[in-house]
Amino acid sequence: MKKLLIATHGYLADGFKSSLSILTGQQDQVQYINAYVDESDYTDALEAFIDSVGPDDQGVIFTDIYGGSVCQRVLLQQPASHGIFHVTGANLGLVIEVLLTDKPITREYLEGAIEAARSTMRIVEEEAPQSPQEDSADDFFA
Amino acid sequence: MKKLLIATHGYLADGFKSSLSILTGQQDQVQYINAYVDESDYTDALEAFIDSVGPDDQGVIFTDIYGGSVCQRVLLQQPASHGIFHVTGANLGLVIEVLLTDKPITREYLEGAIEAARSTMRIVEEEAPQSPQEDSADDFFA
Repeated sequence: MKKLLIATHGYLADGFKSSLSILTGQQDQVQYINAYVDESDYTDALEAFIDSVGPDDQGVIFTDIYGGSVCQRVLLQQPASHGIFHVTGANLGLVIEVLLTDKPITREYLEGAIEAARSTMRIVEEEAPQSPQEDSADDFFA
Repeated sequence: MKKLLIATHGYLADGFKSSLSILTGQQDQVQYINAYVDESDYTDALEAFIDSVGPDDQGVIFTDIYGGSVCQRVLLQQPASHGIFHVTGANLGLVIEVLLTDKPITREYLEGAIEAARSTMRIVEEEAPQSPQEDSADDFFA
């Protein structure tokens, strides 16, 4: 079973949930931790997620910013030792790709998905789409 | 003056606001559009932002996902013709970088910031930080 968690500073995780609801309708297939929105410690929620991922599951934890305190807190829990991937700096496209894919969540798969998501982080040009040397409109989603 | 807008599907924009509040305290230096959370049309808010960016301002619109409907709606408004950059697929690190920089927001600056933000979208490894061939811990934020 695929098990996904988004953990962020503040309500960014719930923000992703809202976007996933609109774009995929599968927002409930992801768990969310909004860290530092109150005095509570999110370590317990993090541990509970990690413990919930069994050897036959495919687990991914997304965090918001490389080197941020949420990323570091996840790192301390050593998810990799539980077979869980930890991907930081995620954007919405990456989360959607991993949520919707039917492929097994392997390292090779994730590296490819990350590379693709990186390429969609870009300045949007406004050249006329009929211009043959421009591909800006061709690979837009339907 | 720097003028920034984050426009997303659902409350992801407000999620970024929450993270920016915690991490920078400068969340009020950014405007936010949470699209499709009700029946209202966000085109007016988009136009108002674009109109607010004068020739001496430096404007950037961040959208959530390349080719998504928010991205396409912004594209239709032709922000580039108003001297405003449109960056899609943004992650939190990129928004923070652009918000906090003292550098002029030129195309060259943005392309560098995007390239840097792309590199922070990654699988977080858990190798021992003292291992000399690993740099995973060295470039973490303080």
